Amino acid sequence: MQNFEYCNKTKIIFGRGTENQAGKETAIFARRILLHHSGGSAVRSGLIENVKNSLKEAGVAWVELTGVQPNPRLSLVKEGVDIVKNEKLDFVLAVGGGSAIDSAKAIAAGAVNDGDLWDYFERRKTLQGALPVGTIVTIPAAGSESSTSCVITNEEGPWKRGMHSVFNRPVFSIMNPELTYSLPPFQTACGITDMMAHIMERYFTREQHVEFTDELCEGALRAIIRNGRKIFSGGENNYDARAEIMWAGAVAHNGILDTGRIGDWASHALDHELSALFDIAHGAGLAIIFPAWLKYNVNEDSSLESMSRLARFAVKVWGVDGAFYDYRQAALEGIFRMENFFKSIGMPTRLKDANIDTSRIPEMAKRVVHFGPIGNYRKLDSKDAQAIYNLAAE
Amino acid sequence: MQNFEYCNKTKIIFGRGTENQAGKETAIFARRILLHHSGGSAVRSGLIENVKNSLKEAGVAWVELTGVQPNPRLSLVKEGVDIVKNEKLDFVLAVGGGSAIDSAKAIAAGAVNDGDLWDYFERRKTLQGALPVGTIVTIPAAGSESSTSCVITNEEGPWKRGMHSVFNRPVFSIMNPELTYSLPPFQTACGITDMMAHIMERYFTREQHVEFTDELCEGALRAIIRNGRKIFSGGENNYDARAEIMWAGAVAHNGILDTGRIGDWASHALDHELSALFDIAHGAGLAIIFPAWLKYNVNEDSSLESMSRLARFAVKVWGVDGAFYDYRQAALEGIFRMENFFKSIGMPTRLKDANIDTSRIPEMAKRVVHFGPIGNYRKLDSKDAQAIYNLAAE
Repeated sequence: MQNFEYCNKTKIIFGRGTENQAGKETAIFARRILLHHSGGSAVRSGLIENVKNSLKEAGVAWVELTGVQPNPRLSLVKEGVDIVKNEKLDFVLAVGGGSAIDSAKAIAAGAVNDGDLWDYFERRKTLQGALPVGTIVTIPAAGSESSTSCVITNEEGPWKRGMHSVFNRPVFSIMNPELTYSLPPFQTACGITDMMAHIMERYFTREQHVEFTDELCEGALRAIIRNGRKIFSGGENNYDARAEIMWAGAVAHNGILDTGRIGDWASHALDHELSALFDIAHGAGLAIIFPAWLKYNVNEDSSLESMSRLARFAVKVWGVDGAFYDYRQAALEGIFRMENFFKSIGMPTRLKDANIDTSRIPEMAKRVVHFGPIGNYRKLDSKDAQAIYNLAAE
Repeated sequence: MQNFEYCNKTKIIFGRGTENQAGKETAIFARRILLHHSGGSAVRSGLIENVKNSLKEAGVAWVELTGVQPNPRLSLVKEGVDIVKNEKLDFVLAVGGGSAIDSAKAIAAGAVNDGDLWDYFERRKTLQGALPVGTIVTIPAAGSESSTSCVITNEEGPWKRGMHSVFNRPVFSIMNPELTYSLPPFQTACGITDMMAHIMERYFTREQHVEFTDELCEGALRAIIRNGRKIFSGGENNYDARAEIMWAGAVAHNGILDTGRIGDWASHALDHELSALFDIAHGAGLAIIFPAWLKYNVNEDSSLESMSRLARFAVKVWGVDGAFYDYRQAALEGIFRMENFFKSIGMPTRLKDANIDTSRIPEMAKRVVHFGPIGNYRKLDSKDAQAIYNLAAE
């Protein structure tokens, strides 16, 4: 097990009706805030109206910035930074999913860090602080509600880049599973895939003695898979299934599951290129990339050490009976079951399912190693990346 | 799933050599501190010397209070409060296990809350704050290093009582598994039992839809059992096994495993009477009480709802093959295996193993309901408590 530090200060407020605490929780930090959301479904559902009433009651004034979209854009972030500075706002409240939250985090960072904000995403500078951010989560997926991550797309490129900093952790996150009942099935499925990927990126490590967190990862994945099936079997409005998924999605990315281990994260990088060039939803991209990444690992490294983790993943997460398969067969059976699960919730599992132009694979394989080789479970250069994109094209 | 709030601000610093960061981490909060420990093994091992050097380097001055013992005493706490007030100290640094940490928490509370400190343990008053506490953990057991709990024994009684408050959470906890190599096997075993009990108290809930945290609890228990066996099979100095146990023990009690559920905690109350009257180690008391509590539940409630959780515990945690047993048989087989595990690490599983005078059972059964019926999975009155103590006497 690796040495580690772990501290997560985000206050989680979870359950029915909790959105009505938005004002009270915000007022602890500020009286003038930026209210940031898409302007779409959260308005139609009446949620934004409820949040505004709660803010009003608590004596909190707001300026509104709408227009967040999936793969949130740097241009809107810059607009937000200008508003926060000009209006002298002290807090950013995001209502939405990972896109609204990440957009809010970037605005909060841009408000107090000088120079070109994109430098922080290009790893040329390090954040020195940020305004406090609160969130009201409507899409369980990104886990951004208590994570250090912030992923933004710069349209001039386009480039999709992540920025990681403890200053990115929200001060509070409000999570009411009822708010997720009305999500389109595609978004629910993308969310389930995204949180599973967050756990799998941590699970695939070369660290040998991380049994406790292995168990937590496997258990979390099983709970997500079972409750995901419930939601997609007529359980759209099943509070308990929605609650399991929502809380698991937060814990998946709150840092506790990677204590003592080094995760992989190559699949996220491989998907970021799909998202940047084709604006595909993050979860959908991961459902295409992850099976290909696993197959590449099964094919490239037949060592006992490597194969035993791939087989364990199949046995412990996908219920493959280890007694009836050798390690390689078990690993492949696990991947097969994972693909079937993704398909069953309406996710694509091949590039063609998402109408991705495979002629751009060489370009993506070149872009993905912008900062050097990717991945830790297995270091991947451009050639490896191309092979994985090709497996996703089969 | 129940609504919940969750926030744990304790910074965990985990791994080899981390005790050398004690000075740096303390200096963030204070320059004059109380250094609190037993004066025993941590001095002999050289740890206290290392900590003092680290404090010196960071420019932190200390006053030392030693003499903490298992089931930490109110009299020593009061002595500590006087020192902190007279010397105008701003921080308490505990070095040791749950006893040193809980003693430090009580001192930190007593330093800033007026009146008789015992009132806060008797639930007559609520904490309004506390000095910051830091910890260097040498016994993985209580999970007090990031918990809201503080358990103290008042010799005038004697009474053993817990006080719960967010102000009890340490600001940082330093955890180096190497510091636990030299623990006597009995203390290692008590620690393993204590952390397992913390998880089981949370696991046994009437809340029906808490699958995600069920999975986390079961996985944590399996990891503790497997690595406990390793330590007791010649692995005293096995870093990885010690690390798994140490980190699992912290997470067991950091609050994440009971999000959305109501735990039971009757077994803790039943053991507190054993500890108060017979000064038995907390872990050893729990190894006696928990099997009896489980048997009582198996006997008293044959409903499908109740029995299915007892059986699931046996199947998922103790590897009982559900296909070959009915629920009741499976539950009993699980208890049998748990007892065998406790015995294998040198724990008592009956009152007589710990030389407890069973003639005082009626007295303990009366004392334990001091605040009213105990437990949530099953509410227990004095008669029920007596029956459980009797099962532990068999």
